[in-house]
Amino acid sequence: MRLIFIFFLVTVSSFNLHAQETTDNDVRMIRAIYDQSLTNSSCYTWLEYLTTSIGGRLAGSPASMAAVFYTKQMLDTIGLDATSLQDCEVPHWNRGIKEEARIVLSSQYGSYPMNCLALGNSEGTGELGLTAEVVEVKSLDEVEKLGKSKIEGKIVFYNRPMDPTQIRTFNAYGGAVDQRVYGASKAAEFGAVGVLVRSMTTRLDDYPHTGTLVYNDGIKKIPAISISTNDSELLSRLLKREKIKVFLRNTSEMLSPKMSYNVIGEIKGSEFPDEIILVGGHLDAWDVGQGAHDDGAGCVQAMEVLNTLKKINYKPKRTIRVVLFMNEENGLGGGLAYAKESNEKKEYHLAAIESDSGGFSPRGFSCDAEVEVFNEKFKSFYDFSPLLEPYGLMITKGGSGADINPLKSQKGLLIGLRPDSQRYFDYHHTEIDTFETVNQRELELGAAAMTSIVYLIDQYGL
Amino acid sequence: MRLIFIFFLVTVSSFNLHAQETTDNDVRMIRAIYDQSLTNSSCYTWLEYLTTSIGGRLAGSPASMAAVFYTKQMLDTIGLDATSLQDCEVPHWNRGIKEEARIVLSSQYGSYPMNCLALGNSEGTGELGLTAEVVEVKSLDEVEKLGKSKIEGKIVFYNRPMDPTQIRTFNAYGGAVDQRVYGASKAAEFGAVGVLVRSMTTRLDDYPHTGTLVYNDGIKKIPAISISTNDSELLSRLLKREKIKVFLRNTSEMLSPKMSYNVIGEIKGSEFPDEIILVGGHLDAWDVGQGAHDDGAGCVQAMEVLNTLKKINYKPKRTIRVVLFMNEENGLGGGLAYAKESNEKKEYHLAAIESDSGGFSPRGFSCDAEVEVFNEKFKSFYDFSPLLEPYGLMITKGGSGADINPLKSQKGLLIGLRPDSQRYFDYHHTEIDTFETVNQRELELGAAAMTSIVYLIDQYGL
Repeated sequence: MRLIFIFFLVTVSSFNLHAQETTDNDVRMIRAIYDQSLTNSSCYTWLEYLTTSIGGRLAGSPASMAAVFYTKQMLDTIGLDATSLQDCEVPHWNRGIKEEARIVLSSQYGSYPMNCLALGNSEGTGELGLTAEVVEVKSLDEVEKLGKSKIEGKIVFYNRPMDPTQIRTFNAYGGAVDQRVYGASKAAEFGAVGVLVRSMTTRLDDYPHTGTLVYNDGIKKIPAISISTNDSELLSRLLKREKIKVFLRNTSEMLSPKMSYNVIGEIKGSEFPDEIILVGGHLDAWDVGQGAHDDGAGCVQAMEVLNTLKKINYKPKRTIRVVLFMNEENGLGGGLAYAKESNEKKEYHLAAIESDSGGFSPRGFSCDAEVEVFNEKFKSFYDFSPLLEPYGLMITKGGSGADINPLKSQKGLLIGLRPDSQRYFDYHHTEIDTFETVNQRELELGAAAMTSIVYLIDQYGL
Repeated sequence: MRLIFIFFLVTVSSFNLHAQETTDNDVRMIRAIYDQSLTNSSCYTWLEYLTTSIGGRLAGSPASMAAVFYTKQMLDTIGLDATSLQDCEVPHWNRGIKEEARIVLSSQYGSYPMNCLALGNSEGTGELGLTAEVVEVKSLDEVEKLGKSKIEGKIVFYNRPMDPTQIRTFNAYGGAVDQRVYGASKAAEFGAVGVLVRSMTTRLDDYPHTGTLVYNDGIKKIPAISISTNDSELLSRLLKREKIKVFLRNTSEMLSPKMSYNVIGEIKGSEFPDEIILVGGHLDAWDVGQGAHDDGAGCVQAMEVLNTLKKINYKPKRTIRVVLFMNEENGLGGGLAYAKESNEKKEYHLAAIESDSGGFSPRGFSCDAEVEVFNEKFKSFYDFSPLLEPYGLMITKGGSGADINPLKSQKGLLIGLRPDSQRYFDYHHTEIDTFETVNQRELELGAAAMTSIVYLIDQYGL
């Protein structure tokens, strides 16, 4: 305690703008926020409905519209100053029939079905499927090196695992996900007819993980299917012994874009209504699971921030706005539409806080901003640390969230909630991203953490 | 990053004894420890056997002996300098037939069976059971206030919930568990015939939580049974409307003490063999679940510390010893026997590290010691913080572990691994404390955290 206290003094005396102003009242307010969140919040109940009654809700799907109307309805019950739906055009991708990726063995032994999922935005193979020899690679560069002679007519199998030695699993994801996002176009450039991608998880298990791919303009769109890590290991072992053909079939297709909606609610600021503090998550979720951690949790936490402020009867100085973004997963239609309209209205987001890293036990926040304002904004925010440390929250530099990133040019602070990351990629984009895997206390603690910083930023600015 | 860096400098210049000596080599060694733990450890496989093939293993039971011989066997495979079993006498309590706690309704409606578990060490009701009126209380004090006139002949129902607003759930447990441990004797003092205890969890669910009770000498031993939190809420609501009788039946009994064993292994120190660094967990676990988080996880993590040191070919200066203690749950026979023999041999435990808070994502360590050595030892240990912070580990003051606490008089530092606590009391002492609830990475990260501090303490002392 002594050393921690000295650190606190040093922090205050050297850098703090705000810590000197913070009072016992802030300590009491944050305690009140946590008490409310842990004993009387609605977020877990909202999540149950969103996940078990609505479920997977990819942009453009009927379920995504159910999610829009359900969350709007819930926001209407908590007594905000305004709620609204904001138009945004979204791609409408459909998975089609259950996809297949089978290792072709022989006429005697038939074929071995791998656990697979078409990647989001993938083209289909057509109903008859396709069969081709498999070439395993560990990177996009390797495809370039192998060149057309080795790739043409083949199925390219991207099999570089997520690095298990990364302590933060998102770093491991960042180091492997280029295969899923850009692998199809890279392979097609050299004449491949299809792509298999190792699932994005450090676990060895049987669950395939979907997720978006991006086709480069002017390159043929070829089908891309993820396979489980266990099947990736198997396929790789077989390829070391002999040539392997795989049969792929999916009837995925990109349909016409659809109109969809961001869901918005706000409490108007009493002193600085033009300074907006945004909290958000994304409402869409992959079709295969219930979208519980990704990102039902973030949505209901963001909603809970405003609910908590109302419940403890807090009147903010600045405008506190919740935004549930549509189409983060395969297009960012909602985030882009929101930023565009906000810029047109010449709005200023003093801070935007996104929760899109799962409903796990919160460990802090990471911050980003335009380079010319970053140091000042980060310092102001970092100075709140002594009030947050008793709740296990650390403030670091780093990414924030995909949906709020387009607001960066407004020169506010972009903040991402950082929950413990260890379990996230056990569930991410799979059929097991379900309500049961979210712990009520952990979800509520995340909401309380977000509400606490909204309160502090509202009180002291940045 | 800038601020963190300044903090680092301040820490080094003002207080550090060791940080100046620490080198890039320490950074590399800790990285190597994590790499080994996250890619090539055995702890998860050991845990699977201990939980799914052996399961619940209360002291004195055949399963507890299977656990002793299994873990000894595994220690024998990792190439230690010595392994052994240490005798310790343990109580041998047996749950008997499946217990019952039924709300007596009427001849028309029969009775309502509550989800219940006899508390560890509880007496039985006899095979015919007993029926009595229920008195609800919120504390032991309330029993005293009600006195003999209100308590005699009744079943006392302790129903004070764990406080959900505590951020660390162990604090909430500490604030409620006196009802379970001492409630029976307090009620018996005033003539009660039995005790019901609300389960120790903040969740509302149907799982009863067992756990030990302690009977005071000279007070009649009355049966004590825990009921789930949902049933506690129901019973409490009914009691507000009318008088309620409950039927209790359990055939639990305390049998003759048995001989059992602590399991010990060590790597002899090359320079200071008489300075012991102990790592441990407890091998016994309640009979109703698999003892996965409590404390299979701690046992396999402690074993993994020595396994990792061998695997990375580290030759310690000091003696590194793993101890798997028997009978933590209902007697502490193992911990007391170990400390007694250690004191008789005039051993010195420079540090003892226990993992007994679940196999969740590690967040740091808490430390305790005799008051006259605490400041010095804590300071030395705290100075390692900059090497541990990149792994999300904080050093704080606080409790360590029940099994190592008897070593306090040797004036070393007692250290408890502190995993994230939010989910622990979802599983603690229930039938759902199972292997599936332990995440492999989280378990391995805990082992790596422990190995890292063993390495640092071995290198620099305290």
